[in-house]
Amino acid sequence: MVGIRADSRFIAMNLINVAIFGASGYSGEELVRRLAQHPRVRIVGLTSRQHAGKKASDLFPWLDPHSPVADLQFISPDAANLTREDVAAVFLALPHGVASEFAVPLLDAGIRVLDLSADFRTRDPQVYREFYQQEHPAKALLSRSVYGLAEIHRDEIRKAELVACPGCYPTGILLPVLPLIRSGLIRADSVIATSMSGVSGAGRKAEISLLFVECNESVRPYSLPLHRHLSEIEQEISLAAGRETKIQFAPHLVPLNRGIVTTIHADGNANEVQISNAYTRAYGSDRFVRLLGTDRFPDVKHVAHSNAIEIAWRVDSRTGKIILMSALDNLVKGAAGQAIQCLNIMQGWEEGIGLS
Amino acid sequence: MVGIRADSRFIAMNLINVAIFGASGYSGEELVRRLAQHPRVRIVGLTSRQHAGKKASDLFPWLDPHSPVADLQFISPDAANLTREDVAAVFLALPHGVASEFAVPLLDAGIRVLDLSADFRTRDPQVYREFYQQEHPAKALLSRSVYGLAEIHRDEIRKAELVACPGCYPTGILLPVLPLIRSGLIRADSVIATSMSGVSGAGRKAEISLLFVECNESVRPYSLPLHRHLSEIEQEISLAAGRETKIQFAPHLVPLNRGIVTTIHADGNANEVQISNAYTRAYGSDRFVRLLGTDRFPDVKHVAHSNAIEIAWRVDSRTGKIILMSALDNLVKGAAGQAIQCLNIMQGWEEGIGLS
Amino acid sequence: MVGIRADSRFIAMNLINVAIFGASGYSGEELVRRLAQHPRVRIVGLTSRQHAGKKASDLFPWLDPHSPVADLQFISPDAANLTREDVAAVFLALPHGVASEFAVPLLDAGIRVLDLSADFRTRDPQVYREFYQQEHPAKALLSRSVYGLAEIHRDEIRKAELVACPGCYPTGILLPVLPLIRSGLIRADSVIATSMSGVSGAGRKAEISLLFVECNESVRPYSLPLHRHLSEIEQEISLAAGRETKIQFAPHLVPLNRGIVTTIHADGNANEVQISNAYTRAYGSDRFVRLLGTDRFPDVKHVAHSNAIEIAWRVDSRTGKIILMSALDNLVKGAAGQAIQCLNIMQGWEEGIGLS
Amino acid sequence: MVGIRADSRFIAMNLINVAIFGASGYSGEELVRRLAQHPRVRIVGLTSRQHAGKKASDLFPWLDPHSPVADLQFISPDAANLTREDVAAVFLALPHGVASEFAVPLLDAGIRVLDLSADFRTRDPQVYREFYQQEHPAKALLSRSVYGLAEIHRDEIRKAELVACPGCYPTGILLPVLPLIRSGLIRADSVIATSMSGVSGAGRKAEISLLFVECNESVRPYSLPLHRHLSEIEQEISLAAGRETKIQFAPHLVPLNRGIVTTIHADGNANEVQISNAYTRAYGSDRFVRLLGTDRFPDVKHVAHSNAIEIAWRVDSRTGKIILMSALDNLVKGAAGQAIQCLNIMQGWEEGIGLS
Repeated sequence: MVGIRADSRFIAMNLINVAIFGASGYSGEELVRRLAQHPRVRIVGLTSRQHAGKKASDLFPWLDPHSPVADLQFISPDAANLTREDVAAVFLALPHGVASEFAVPLLDAGIRVLDLSADFRTRDPQVYREFYQQEHPAKALLSRSVYGLAEIHRDEIRKAELVACPGCYPTGILLPVLPLIRSGLIRADSVIATSMSGVSGAGRKAEISLLFVECNESVRPYSLPLHRHLSEIEQEISLAAGRETKIQFAPHLVPLNRGIVTTIHADGNANEVQISNAYTRAYGSDRFVRLLGTDRFPDVKHVAHSNAIEIAWRVDSRTGKIILMSALDNLVKGAAGQAIQCLNIMQGWEEGIGLS
Repeated sequence: MVGIRADSRFIAMNLINVAIFGASGYSGEELVRRLAQHPRVRIVGLTSRQHAGKKASDLFPWLDPHSPVADLQFISPDAANLTREDVAAVFLALPHGVASEFAVPLLDAGIRVLDLSADFRTRDPQVYREFYQQEHPAKALLSRSVYGLAEIHRDEIRKAELVACPGCYPTGILLPVLPLIRSGLIRADSVIATSMSGVSGAGRKAEISLLFVECNESVRPYSLPLHRHLSEIEQEISLAAGRETKIQFAPHLVPLNRGIVTTIHADGNANEVQISNAYTRAYGSDRFVRLLGTDRFPDVKHVAHSNAIEIAWRVDSRTGKIILMSALDNLVKGAAGQAIQCLNIMQGWEEGIGLS
Repeated sequence: MVGIRADSRFIAMNLINVAIFGASGYSGEELVRRLAQHPRVRIVGLTSRQHAGKKASDLFPWLDPHSPVADLQFISPDAANLTREDVAAVFLALPHGVASEFAVPLLDAGIRVLDLSADFRTRDPQVYREFYQQEHPAKALLSRSVYGLAEIHRDEIRKAELVACPGCYPTGILLPVLPLIRSGLIRADSVIATSMSGVSGAGRKAEISLLFVECNESVRPYSLPLHRHLSEIEQEISLAAGRETKIQFAPHLVPLNRGIVTTIHADGNANEVQISNAYTRAYGSDRFVRLLGTDRFPDVKHVAHSNAIEIAWRVDSRTGKIILMSALDNLVKGAAGQAIQCLNIMQGWEEGIGLS
Repeated sequence: MVGIRADSRFIAMNLINVAIFGASGYSGEELVRRLAQHPRVRIVGLTSRQHAGKKASDLFPWLDPHSPVADLQFISPDAANLTREDVAAVFLALPHGVASEFAVPLLDAGIRVLDLSADFRTRDPQVYREFYQQEHPAKALLSRSVYGLAEIHRDEIRKAELVACPGCYPTGILLPVLPLIRSGLIRADSVIATSMSGVSGAGRKAEISLLFVECNESVRPYSLPLHRHLSEIEQEISLAAGRETKIQFAPHLVPLNRGIVTTIHADGNANEVQISNAYTRAYGSDRFVRLLGTDRFPDVKHVAHSNAIEIAWRVDSRTGKIILMSALDNLVKGAAGQAIQCLNIMQGWEEGIGLS
């Protein structure tokens, strides 16, 4: 019978098994939250080196105790275990350098991999070395990886086995910027992006600088001028521009749990209508991109806990300068949500299932 | 075909029409958020005196622009309009005193009413006058009203036409307290409840005392010793105790958006096992009550944006004093969520639909 | 006997009388806080249309009840009253348009005026009309006014009768930018300033958009591309550059009580040593400017409740782009503190008294 | 000449040398902040095992770079070093168990010790073992220690060599409770204290549970029913009551940097006037105790960054229950400020110097 909400408990068929590596971090937790509700997915594995042996509900007290995920035990990360489980897809929410260790055997076992680390985002191992100060750990896989910016690389994601999910900052910069570069409305190398991120973007790490008292009533720039995310941002901008491009990126930490706002200045010869048209062409039918136009402003409050990104734009009539603004939830559209969106695309499902 | 999430856009049958009065406040907004996703419900009316004429998406930018709710226009509150719309149920998220004005004609027209104001919570119009400093505006309806504390009054709610949804504080106090009073484990008149509420509990009102700068880095008690919610708390406690009972209640405003933690001290002759048994008997099969026992502590972070309530307990071995603790989201289990839970019960649906 | 802290209660001589108009707003409150401790000042008047008749301690419960200010009664704003009181200086913490009404008679009565509104910041009444959408209310005074950016216009402030205290954003932009424009290290019209402000910057106004729940867990750009503060920023930049200059300015509201961080991108031909030298020349002996250099980052947490501004800088070695960063407390260095610093300069006192 | 503020740079005589052990924690930092401005004190030593070798301004960027403290180097904690420095008093802002190690040799060298740890608060080493799960490390000193609740034990503090500064919670509970117990207005063993503390109360520790994301949008009870501070609270209450007394204490963590609000319920036979009189007798001439009476409510916002405590009271006319409320800054009146107040008393100085 149609018409009733398909509660995951009542679904007996058509499910795929998935596992989440590094499930105890903030992105991992968000994956659990979303996938536990996903109507086509059954979570069969959660790994955490530190919490192996504990139940999911010990770490995630918000889990419905009647959900099957609540009793799932964390295990140590071990690709071998999972390949025996008829797992169709694995999410890697691990630090860069570590993720690739697991990606190799998982892919060899025919499992689809959605990597939320930086390991497979940059094509050029030289760029990886420059920005991550280490040799790339699995160069052979780089050519097989697809950059998981869903609205931009949807066709390649559909056929991918290894998706490198974008960083949270890059998603908030690239989605507003790429359509305008592609249509020649802004000059790629004039892009100056200033972002403000909630503290979950820094991960669940026991560091003094991330304590409540250090972050509350604080705002601070950091990692200027060479934040690691520049590597993937510039790669995608260069691709769209058709030539190697360098830009400016200034990240800031602001006292909220989740969300990133980005304001971008760029040079170009465009009016607001042309920009509007370019965005409508690019995202007109995309349910997760909300085009706010020239009257409204994005706000992380509008996108928190959702997979949406808001984009607004202005042209300064005095100077011709083009200003683009975006807001997204760094843990959803900037991490777990976009990864699930990519899974949906890879599986040929409706792109938004499990994400509303 | 079974197995896919029943997106509201694809459902053509078995839906009931509902309207939300006072939809622009925080509780109203939460009702919109939840009901827009509810698989058995179609929102056909949103009222707001102040915003009549605007579209839902103007006030709620977080609405999926493709959702049918996004384009719904706010109208002025007028019961007559709605009775023409084949509306099955109406949620009143209006101030006390105002809600009852609309309840009367709606009930007369055979529409079920879920009132989130205080107008129908206290049976005794004298108590209403005492606590709300005005004559009760619709005394005749008091006898038809059921107090919508879902886990306690489920059987009456099933048959109700008018449900008086409990206040946010009462829900966090009564759910932990009532089973222990009923089973004689605590002395009803010894209850001392201290609560800490997020600022949304005060409503979306343009008042200096609710400004960000006034509430951030602030903690303050208020409305001591006679907060209005005492009227319904004492009514329900008296009912469970079998005699008129007065208790202590100390509310505090703390700087977070949502959530209430309540810590209760009471006298009694009970050990932790007896308390645990009483709770299991009362709530063992209730999906929205999470019994944390004597090791864990409730936290609003665990229940935010969900309809769950966490309950924990301790007996101080030195003094025999009984300590109960609870956490809930004031806008969900303390308002909109519990109202929807009541609707589900009234309609004979699974109690949790639209609430996960 | 020397050596003990000169508590204001023990000082009987050498005090000047001051009054604060609009003392109930956030800047006004900060003026009261600071001036109540200032060793050379006696507060003799506090005005507030809304709170006339109340005692200072009613509005400012933090006041030491033994302080003489605690019992001071708010009066309605009326210049005439104050001229009878042997008042030497008046601070106007009033909205623009209103401030000038009082400035005229006060100046006529020989009283020094420190205006925290925008009324006397821009020399050109045409610019005022453009940015403030009203005719300038006291054009004749414009030529007598000095822009109170203390470290930049110290010599003029010394001789001024009317000081137009800079806005909070302008202070955070101009102090890092002006020395580099003056020494030709950056191109004035290439300046792109992105700022993040705490909510007190919006004033103590009963507006929905400033409620705790609206601002907490929110970050949002606003007033783009033509925030009113651009008028005074561009005036000062044009002055330093020697020609009319337009820049970009992108303000954001972030969830903290106080503080502004600004990150500025500019073009130029400068290395980090040249920038460092320019700053040392400009601010080397200024106690309120902390030059952080190229290793450290500014943070509002370091400057909250103080009159200091932190300035840091980088040159992106890949692009040559110059990045400047600043942090200040919008209510102190960005408002009340700088106003008091100006008073100290005008009176020939040590610049920092009452501000440590 | 009298009349000017005695800036510390101009004072050449009558200063005593002090050192701060454990200066890098939140209480230590607050001591530095206050003592750097104290007109009778010169900071000559700052210890931190972890930061030895760094300059004070590296850890405390808010320090005025021209202040002599800014260039002071952190040293490893070593009592021997300091006894050579002509140090008159030492503040120990160290963990319990560690503080006593240093107290012994310092006292032997004739140096006054103000200990902010729990080591010398409880007279009975048995109670210490019970609450701190370790043998008391310096029993011989217990009899020489004075409990530094300034308004209560002023006379003993005046003659003390070793002051055990109270915990932050005890200060907020004992100051409202003791005068009423002493005058027989409330029954000591009926006291139920519920407190809400800002996160700095937990110290500057790199723990997951203290991260911004874990504390923001969170409220939680903890350490119930036997928080360690109960030991000193009950000791002082027992002393005032004249017999051993046990009470209830329920601490909560709330998302703000600083401040504690406590709400206390107690039984007694008192009306509001009697309570008012008892407080006026006890604190009428104390500049740091603000008696709010029965109309106003305490708020941490009123006392943040100050050494004040606010106390308010109500009698519930329906039940006779007595309700007391207090607010203080846990790092000032609850730690560093009260310690300095004690130093002032020990030195025979005006009690409030360095604290306004």
